[in-house]
Amino acid sequence: MKMWDGRFAKTTDRLMELFNNSLPFDRLLIREDIEVNRAWAEALRACGVLSATELKKIVSALNAIERDCKKGSVRFEPGDEDIHMAIERMVIEKAGPAGAKIHTGRSRNDQVATDLRLYAKKSLQDIIDEIIVLQKVVLARAESDVDVVMPGYTHLQQAQPVIMAHYWLSLFYALEREKSRCIHAANTADILPLGSGALAGSGFVIDRALLAKKLGFAAVSDNSMDAVATRDFVLEALSVCSAIGILLSRYAEDLIIWSSKEFGYVELDDAWSTGSSMMPQKKNPDSLELLRGKTGRLIGNYTSLAATLKGTGLTYYKDLQEDKEPLFDSVSQTAMMLLVFSRVLSTIIINKDRTVKNLDPLLLATDIADYLTTKGVPFRDAHHITGDLVSHCIRKKVNISEISLEKLKMFSSRFDKDIKRKLTWNSALAGRDIAGGTGKNSVKRQIRKAKKLLGAAKP
Amino acid sequence: MKMWDGRFAKTTDRLMELFNNSLPFDRLLIREDIEVNRAWAEALRACGVLSATELKKIVSALNAIERDCKKGSVRFEPGDEDIHMAIERMVIEKAGPAGAKIHTGRSRNDQVATDLRLYAKKSLQDIIDEIIVLQKVVLARAESDVDVVMPGYTHLQQAQPVIMAHYWLSLFYALEREKSRCIHAANTADILPLGSGALAGSGFVIDRALLAKKLGFAAVSDNSMDAVATRDFVLEALSVCSAIGILLSRYAEDLIIWSSKEFGYVELDDAWSTGSSMMPQKKNPDSLELLRGKTGRLIGNYTSLAATLKGTGLTYYKDLQEDKEPLFDSVSQTAMMLLVFSRVLSTIIINKDRTVKNLDPLLLATDIADYLTTKGVPFRDAHHITGDLVSHCIRKKVNISEISLEKLKMFSSRFDKDIKRKLTWNSALAGRDIAGGTGKNSVKRQIRKAKKLLGAAKP
Amino acid sequence: MKMWDGRFAKTTDRLMELFNNSLPFDRLLIREDIEVNRAWAEALRACGVLSATELKKIVSALNAIERDCKKGSVRFEPGDEDIHMAIERMVIEKAGPAGAKIHTGRSRNDQVATDLRLYAKKSLQDIIDEIIVLQKVVLARAESDVDVVMPGYTHLQQAQPVIMAHYWLSLFYALEREKSRCIHAANTADILPLGSGALAGSGFVIDRALLAKKLGFAAVSDNSMDAVATRDFVLEALSVCSAIGILLSRYAEDLIIWSSKEFGYVELDDAWSTGSSMMPQKKNPDSLELLRGKTGRLIGNYTSLAATLKGTGLTYYKDLQEDKEPLFDSVSQTAMMLLVFSRVLSTIIINKDRTVKNLDPLLLATDIADYLTTKGVPFRDAHHITGDLVSHCIRKKVNISEISLEKLKMFSSRFDKDIKRKLTWNSALAGRDIAGGTGKNSVKRQIRKAKKLLGAAKP
Amino acid sequence: MKMWDGRFAKTTDRLMELFNNSLPFDRLLIREDIEVNRAWAEALRACGVLSATELKKIVSALNAIERDCKKGSVRFEPGDEDIHMAIERMVIEKAGPAGAKIHTGRSRNDQVATDLRLYAKKSLQDIIDEIIVLQKVVLARAESDVDVVMPGYTHLQQAQPVIMAHYWLSLFYALEREKSRCIHAANTADILPLGSGALAGSGFVIDRALLAKKLGFAAVSDNSMDAVATRDFVLEALSVCSAIGILLSRYAEDLIIWSSKEFGYVELDDAWSTGSSMMPQKKNPDSLELLRGKTGRLIGNYTSLAATLKGTGLTYYKDLQEDKEPLFDSVSQTAMMLLVFSRVLSTIIINKDRTVKNLDPLLLATDIADYLTTKGVPFRDAHHITGDLVSHCIRKKVNISEISLEKLKMFSSRFDKDIKRKLTWNSALAGRDIAGGTGKNSVKRQIRKAKKLLGAAKP
Repeated sequence: MKMWDGRFAKTTDRLMELFNNSLPFDRLLIREDIEVNRAWAEALRACGVLSATELKKIVSALNAIERDCKKGSVRFEPGDEDIHMAIERMVIEKAGPAGAKIHTGRSRNDQVATDLRLYAKKSLQDIIDEIIVLQKVVLARAESDVDVVMPGYTHLQQAQPVIMAHYWLSLFYALEREKSRCIHAANTADILPLGSGALAGSGFVIDRALLAKKLGFAAVSDNSMDAVATRDFVLEALSVCSAIGILLSRYAEDLIIWSSKEFGYVELDDAWSTGSSMMPQKKNPDSLELLRGKTGRLIGNYTSLAATLKGTGLTYYKDLQEDKEPLFDSVSQTAMMLLVFSRVLSTIIINKDRTVKNLDPLLLATDIADYLTTKGVPFRDAHHITGDLVSHCIRKKVNISEISLEKLKMFSSRFDKDIKRKLTWNSALAGRDIAGGTGKNSVKRQIRKAKKLLGAAKP
Repeated sequence: MKMWDGRFAKTTDRLMELFNNSLPFDRLLIREDIEVNRAWAEALRACGVLSATELKKIVSALNAIERDCKKGSVRFEPGDEDIHMAIERMVIEKAGPAGAKIHTGRSRNDQVATDLRLYAKKSLQDIIDEIIVLQKVVLARAESDVDVVMPGYTHLQQAQPVIMAHYWLSLFYALEREKSRCIHAANTADILPLGSGALAGSGFVIDRALLAKKLGFAAVSDNSMDAVATRDFVLEALSVCSAIGILLSRYAEDLIIWSSKEFGYVELDDAWSTGSSMMPQKKNPDSLELLRGKTGRLIGNYTSLAATLKGTGLTYYKDLQEDKEPLFDSVSQTAMMLLVFSRVLSTIIINKDRTVKNLDPLLLATDIADYLTTKGVPFRDAHHITGDLVSHCIRKKVNISEISLEKLKMFSSRFDKDIKRKLTWNSALAGRDIAGGTGKNSVKRQIRKAKKLLGAAKP
Repeated sequence: MKMWDGRFAKTTDRLMELFNNSLPFDRLLIREDIEVNRAWAEALRACGVLSATELKKIVSALNAIERDCKKGSVRFEPGDEDIHMAIERMVIEKAGPAGAKIHTGRSRNDQVATDLRLYAKKSLQDIIDEIIVLQKVVLARAESDVDVVMPGYTHLQQAQPVIMAHYWLSLFYALEREKSRCIHAANTADILPLGSGALAGSGFVIDRALLAKKLGFAAVSDNSMDAVATRDFVLEALSVCSAIGILLSRYAEDLIIWSSKEFGYVELDDAWSTGSSMMPQKKNPDSLELLRGKTGRLIGNYTSLAATLKGTGLTYYKDLQEDKEPLFDSVSQTAMMLLVFSRVLSTIIINKDRTVKNLDPLLLATDIADYLTTKGVPFRDAHHITGDLVSHCIRKKVNISEISLEKLKMFSSRFDKDIKRKLTWNSALAGRDIAGGTGKNSVKRQIRKAKKLLGAAKP
Repeated sequence: MKMWDGRFAKTTDRLMELFNNSLPFDRLLIREDIEVNRAWAEALRACGVLSATELKKIVSALNAIERDCKKGSVRFEPGDEDIHMAIERMVIEKAGPAGAKIHTGRSRNDQVATDLRLYAKKSLQDIIDEIIVLQKVVLARAESDVDVVMPGYTHLQQAQPVIMAHYWLSLFYALEREKSRCIHAANTADILPLGSGALAGSGFVIDRALLAKKLGFAAVSDNSMDAVATRDFVLEALSVCSAIGILLSRYAEDLIIWSSKEFGYVELDDAWSTGSSMMPQKKNPDSLELLRGKTGRLIGNYTSLAATLKGTGLTYYKDLQEDKEPLFDSVSQTAMMLLVFSRVLSTIIINKDRTVKNLDPLLLATDIADYLTTKGVPFRDAHHITGDLVSHCIRKKVNISEISLEKLKMFSSRFDKDIKRKLTWNSALAGRDIAGGTGKNSVKRQIRKAKKLLGAAKP
């Protein structure tokens, strides 16, 4: 027997029950549903639907369910089609006729939207917390790698020397933006739909503002049809998770490459690597690979809900039940990925000797072109002259920084003795103290600002 | 302790174990893994790695695990990082030193690819079977609705009268193509990777052709690096599921609209509908809505794996572990969706009176234009003349089929008495007996061909 | 000859030029690139790279190009590989050696990021403007349809009576959230990357804060590697467009259904409909269908860039060139879709008689159950009783609002005379004046708040 | 004035014309549309709608348009809403009243489906041709690199030695499967919808089988509603393109990494690389990066159409107009990507010395474990023993192949003199002559089979 089957002549087909049943996944909302029930019971009391005694019975039933939940002893029944009907059944069993009043003036439509918003808010806050944890790790990395010089890459070709701390700080600042998006998504979710009924608004005089306050929502929804129909807060959460995954996947890619024997810049701690079932010598950066690989599912979860919502009219359709699994999966995977990345980075071993040794002298080419520019050669010409010089060095297998002034002058008469001072890593770095640059002073300023930002963000 | 940790100084972090662990989902492959182990043990015997006694012990251990599996009493341990390591552990526990030989000459890389291909083949066959079941239901629907005349729609505007059977047959023939795609996907999966080792080929002289025969594969993979790296068979399976979902979603959309009070062409059986927790009068076509809504996840699963695979180099990376969940989800959801749709269609109630009553006389406009064409009016002009006539009927609220010949002649002198015979639904239908058309003879031909096709397809 | 080919022994293959060339699409950035060049030239003057005369020549060249651009007479050459190289070539042609200095201290990496951010900011502002235009139309609709009563739907089944204005207002408030997301996305883009060079920061002492001010950016990027590598601002813009498309697609779906002859609630103006090439009577809501259909591409554009970015390491890779087409397409389509929807809604014809006539008396079922609740029947029981009553009405084809009190009492003794007053649309609506509800007072409050919000938002 | 506006009181809004207009992209179908018109005119002649003279006039008009098309002098007009209406207008202009008969008995719905299927078939054949071209290049690569030994990778960690030819052959065989999918997709498209009218079948007695034959279709569609509604052939083509892109992106990723200075296994020809606007020394593998990056759009195009089709009811809705741009983009990009990859691979420089020099002696670990296995040590134990040995070598910085037998015996007493013969690259390779393995004989067999397969496939 179903809670709603008064009007039905036939019972639901067993297969339909299975197909329709959301309990296997929406049971994750049990705490939220209990919380919402409690607040709703109080609201019903306030507008006279429940007596004080009835309220007490209901609250006591909810408390008992909550205790069972903590103990892991909640018992669901085959007929429970979702977490809401399951809880209502339990409340009725425990509180009797009083329990049968709990669904007065509300619908599963506004109830599930409320549960899900509570869940989204909490999950996004967890993600924000993990972002901050990762930022701290990244900042610590930056502070300890402020003297590590390495090749900076574009197109995976050595481009210019950079300080490794500068690389880590790029992640710090990118995470700032992820945090901002998370906060916006959490704010989008921070609206109370309860009191919207099935679509038209509750028929009872509920004080929704008070309800919002009790449940910790910043405001009440302005329109009941919108309130039960929209899932934009879920989609926004999914887009935030997808963006975070994409960010991490890009750094994971770099670190996987840097972990190769051929690069050898970093080595993962044994605790974050795995071996091969067949090849005894293998040590693989599986943690990073999973970070990268799992990004696919975060993108897929976004696409999944986007496609489901597309063209689905108002207000509630059962299609919307498909909002939960992608949300549950994306937020938990994302929080986990952030945490794993924190742990990987905090234990990673940096091979400083290797990064320096690997620097190709040709990385100074831009500095040579810049030098010519300061001597009055238009940059485009300087670039060509330097290009010729580079070409010469490659053909002749000569180290560009060891080429004689005499020879240099054959490429451009503007070369002078002071060029030699330019041809060092330190000089190249020192010339990039511009705001945001890889110069040591710039990097230190970035670290100071990062600390300040972290100080401001108390999770 | 891990199977592979000889070379490691530190144990894996607990969080890493959790993050890396695929057992929660790849345990679905347990039967396939046992089957593969059995065949592999025989192959090891054939090339002398195992003695007859050792083989016996291993097979007996595998049989025991299989029995446990059937009884649901398989016990996993916290250290089992995936189904393969779990089974190997159990084999070692049960068969002793002989068991420690089972992983000779193979890698998890070729093993998991083999398991997954077996799984994909079986799942795709299940889907093919469900397609055929649905085709039978659709054909039965067509046979019983061969006399139901209804408006055919384009843009959800009434376009021309059609026979309802013709509508159902459109689904039958579309399913033929889904079936063909499934078969192709199953063939793609039907290649044995086992014997490819980690990437370079097994170091033992395994008769792979025999192995393929035992495991029911049509052929052995041609290249070991390709064999362990490719997941194209999974992606193809996901694209097939996505296509099927999209097809069903389009018919679900129509039937949801037809189930509305305003259309009223069909009514779902109570057993396939659900009610509202709040509104006692509601009867909702949830089964159809879920069919439509779940299509999002099928598309999402495709995107998920596509994004994961993009840019992931050869050969095996842990990213590939993300192939399983989308596959498991898509194939099971798709099979279920097909079955649910079969059941919904076989129990649906057709409201014939309503479909006929709803026919707008203006649906004959095309026949009027065609009529003028046969009288020598170029079609483009005939279309304009009829457009004017339609416009007149709308403005004057006149039924186009009841308009007098006199009046008609004011629009075109080519109208003659025989126009009246044209202005009936039967005439309109009869004029469309062209191959593939909605004329009754055409529909009957379609039914005959459908029967023949089904006869040929013995699932 | 390429700007960068000093170091190359061979020229680029013609096919490679074609494959690599971004000019066919990035020429859309021409105005932004000119603006950025102008600001950069001034910055180079400030740090002494350019003399006053050189600056003048360059600015004059840029002005000339801008004039050509307005006249549509800009001439590109086959060798121009992108808009930046094309403009630099033109500047050199027009300004001579001074022009050859324009690329000093910068890279295409920071230049294109700057251009694209300017473009994104402007496009998002256009979208915000169109959202506000649509909100105004929606609000006007609401004000004029405040007396239209219609069935509210869940699952496309009639659920409860609502005021049509309430339906429109649901869109108004949903658009508020889209606007907020747009603003956030615009803020994300509002950071100046210029001065970051290829990846390490410019080697010249550029005042980036001043540069930001001149170009209208709120701040300068904190880290040069992040600045040239990130495309999160594009991805966020794409997610915003996707969300807007999804929102519009849901209302388009409803209105397409409402435009059907069977519903008949609305009719599109002829100016926003199209006809059939074959069927003279057809009038199709193509504008709405395109709104719905185009949502697919907005989702696809998001997926496209997400997949491209996934796993692409730092800093710049040519993969990132694939960011432009999805952005250009999504922002222009979205702005257009909003505008079209504004025009469709402002000209749509509402068929008030039809919406009222269509109301199924069973829509009062919830009010009956609520009534019983106020008489002390627990809601769950009241729901069952009303369900039985509904079932009776359907079987006996009785109008629930005309059933006698005597008969009602057979279902529950709690029914009393006052039930009759409850059984009207007005009573049902009046009972839903709760915040966000469909009661007339609630709707009027929603309208007042909407006006206030619009007043605050001066685009 | 529109072709269909007889029934309309108002003209279409200018914005609506712009929004609705598909000519900017569907003009790509001009040749297909002319071909279809020609065949249709003949069919109309055959059933008596056209006289011989009228047919002649129409065909002559079509020929004239075709000539203009070849010269690039076709003139479209602002009122042309799509390629079909444009061609019909031109035919009427050129052929007079006869031209006004060309649209008799057909609809744009069946016409566009026919055009698009012709286009899809041709495009897929182009892709098949390019696959074969690439396979030939890959095979040539394999033949010339049959003596190049290199590290094979899993997880980007050196795993086992492989022959470079073996790596290339993995691509050859993967392409075989892509080819098979293309052929299936082309077959799906190879069905004639023409004669299906708007949805119900043409009202004229057209010989559709003859029509199919003339247009080169393998069969006629079985059901008219399916014929005008389905876009599964487009979706399948998009999934095929997406799969090809993903495949190429994986090899592109490897080659980008191998092009790094740190790996240095390959170097792109200058003709397929590009330089930096700022850094004179740079040579970037942009061609490969674009191959990888463009895969995102192929995935996005798939998602785009999938989302558009999802939930779009039958038969034709304007949503379906969104099928063209993703198809046009995906097939042309894919063909181009295949061609570019062919050219890149055929000109790439292999650095054989580097690949051998880079081989880590630890790559022999698996062979050592296998050796112990042949001495009777169970593999799992052999793996552990070898792991300890590896660990020892890493700690002591000892070359595993130079370790003394005495020392080896400390790890396992089973080590014997013959171990030394095992510790060479040649021995490791020779042990992998299993079907599909990297042994030289196996590689040669793979080459022979590849040649045979190519011989069979005459594009």
